[in-house]
Amino acid sequence: MKPIVAITAGDPNGVGYEVIIKSLHDPHILELCTPVVYGNLHVARQHAKTLNEDLHGLQWTQIDDVRKAREGQVSIINCYADTTPIKLGEATPEAGKAAYESLRRAAGDLQQGAADALVTAPLNKETVNQAVGQQSAFSGHTEYLAHLFGKDDRALMMLVSERMKVALVCNHTPITEVASQITEERILEKLAMLDECLQNDFRIRNPRIAVLALNPHAGDNGLIGKEEQQIILPAIEKARAEGKWVFGPYAADGFFGSGSYTGYDAVLAMYHDQGLAPFKALDMNGVNYTAGLRIIRTSPDHGTAYDLAGKNQAQPESMLHAIYMAVDALAIRQESQELRKNPLPFIDRFDAEGRPRPEFRTFGGPKNKPRES
Amino acid sequence: MKPIVAITAGDPNGVGYEVIIKSLHDPHILELCTPVVYGNLHVARQHAKTLNEDLHGLQWTQIDDVRKAREGQVSIINCYADTTPIKLGEATPEAGKAAYESLRRAAGDLQQGAADALVTAPLNKETVNQAVGQQSAFSGHTEYLAHLFGKDDRALMMLVSERMKVALVCNHTPITEVASQITEERILEKLAMLDECLQNDFRIRNPRIAVLALNPHAGDNGLIGKEEQQIILPAIEKARAEGKWVFGPYAADGFFGSGSYTGYDAVLAMYHDQGLAPFKALDMNGVNYTAGLRIIRTSPDHGTAYDLAGKNQAQPESMLHAIYMAVDALAIRQESQELRKNPLPFIDRFDAEGRPRPEFRTFGGPKNKPRES
Repeated sequence: MKPIVAITAGDPNGVGYEVIIKSLHDPHILELCTPVVYGNLHVARQHAKTLNEDLHGLQWTQIDDVRKAREGQVSIINCYADTTPIKLGEATPEAGKAAYESLRRAAGDLQQGAADALVTAPLNKETVNQAVGQQSAFSGHTEYLAHLFGKDDRALMMLVSERMKVALVCNHTPITEVASQITEERILEKLAMLDECLQNDFRIRNPRIAVLALNPHAGDNGLIGKEEQQIILPAIEKARAEGKWVFGPYAADGFFGSGSYTGYDAVLAMYHDQGLAPFKALDMNGVNYTAGLRIIRTSPDHGTAYDLAGKNQAQPESMLHAIYMAVDALAIRQESQELRKNPLPFIDRFDAEGRPRPEFRTFGGPKNKPRES
Repeated sequence: MKPIVAITAGDPNGVGYEVIIKSLHDPHILELCTPVVYGNLHVARQHAKTLNEDLHGLQWTQIDDVRKAREGQVSIINCYADTTPIKLGEATPEAGKAAYESLRRAAGDLQQGAADALVTAPLNKETVNQAVGQQSAFSGHTEYLAHLFGKDDRALMMLVSERMKVALVCNHTPITEVASQITEERILEKLAMLDECLQNDFRIRNPRIAVLALNPHAGDNGLIGKEEQQIILPAIEKARAEGKWVFGPYAADGFFGSGSYTGYDAVLAMYHDQGLAPFKALDMNGVNYTAGLRIIRTSPDHGTAYDLAGKNQAQPESMLHAIYMAVDALAIRQESQELRKNPLPFIDRFDAEGRPRPEFRTFGGPKNKPRES
């Protein structure tokens, strides 16, 4: 059975459908998974018309329940009406509502275990908010999914490329509020999610994690801010005491400039632009990976790109990578869970004083025999 | 007469001497300028010993006054005693004092017009502060020089590479204080210095300047902070009203990720890591250029690099670029000043109502003649 990957179409006025249609033309996709698009078939066809003939020809199978998805087919579930007005490149409440309905239905199917992984096309937070109303203010995919699938509503936003992985302590936080959100508890929580994700979803044993400083020059020994000494360093030391391989805090500019990131499996940045500006400067086609959820969720690292909508200019690479990464991470996580079901008991060869226990003294053969004096 | 470039040796326990010695071996340097190192000859020789034989052989001429510097020679002025204890890789108050004395003497010679441009090797702010005492707290080269050579003690920190120029509104500011320093007045002041510098020191006519946002996603229309709408955008509009080509505010991650910087002559970032982390991720050998001063000042964009001191591993490229850029900028600024001495009067071809003045009606030839009806 191939995994079912739920793909939300995002804002129908943006480039979501375009990058999905272009990605699903990759012949390998159907070998690896069963994609189910959450959107609207009529709207998808309207978008396909703006693309070239080859892409236009993609076969879609409309289904009304994800359980009816068949291997080898591109399925689509209608989450909103055919008559939803499409205004390419415009931010409209109707588009916000459509994007929200796609996400809501896909997330519901994930909750019921009817789909295996979630890939989301970009939406416009503002129009979604207009659609859902003030009461259930929508502050982004990551936060919405953290509420549904995270432990204590928490999740970790991470950008992934071949070159590096960058995770954030603060996601979409105004600069005025960044410093107050940097607490030892929060850093430890993010480090725990990152460490677990690298091990279970990316198959990295004993991941090495670099932590960035909050202030320029890592605070210059307290001359430019004291959070490094008072909060970040103690958090790093606690994480190390727990056995994690965590290093830092490093000044962000020198860290990226010297290529130090090549020596670590992931980087924990303190806030959005500090981590994402250098990440994207080096790699535009990264994938947004949400760690710390009970489900696998990825997305392309671009927005609705209204200015490109309907022009057949959007690049599908980031969406394509997002789909592949979801399939990979799902396989690795299932394997990790399988391996942990019946673990071999851990037997310590040494006693409390660090001396080899008698039954293990000859382990490793004659070389381990005490030398004769 | 070749220009006299004053080069401070910086912290004698760091890589300053090493990158200076390596740079001054470039055969073109003496063709373009007369370099005068502010440090100590004995200490320079100690450093030269750690380098390979070829570099060791550089000839130094010790002088006691910059006015005695001769073309074709590498001159050095002793600013501190031969007995100054050198402890490679260590932060010592003696090294701080030595670095400060070099800077003080070089700046003094610039003030008297005896030297033409200043290039500074890195120092350690902390040990300089220990040396100068609390009263005249030293917060960095840029601030020190702004006080001596800036209008109202102001200057603009800018990093320059072949790929881009990034200037900062806040230099070495703790994150907690960044937002409060972002004011319309301050942005306009930085834009004015940047615009003038690009024109006068880099010979860019009508420079195009991109301004970054303060908050992630440029505030997402106010969802993530309102400084973009309330401060940055009005500042940009005022600058445009003054005739400057200023654009933005742009979300930092997308701006660097999409390569948008290639469309602008410079980028004004709001704070240190936002601008410098992506800049250095792309270009490690940038030059730190201080705009807005009465003098020309450059420096390499690395620090004392204590961990490399005495190991013959430091790369001189950034220092070498800093010297070349100082010489270039000096020549361009002198040319700009020359051109402005006796400007041609500006004659407007149009009257107050926008109609061509009679004496210019035939300008451009017969095509401009009114059509006969």
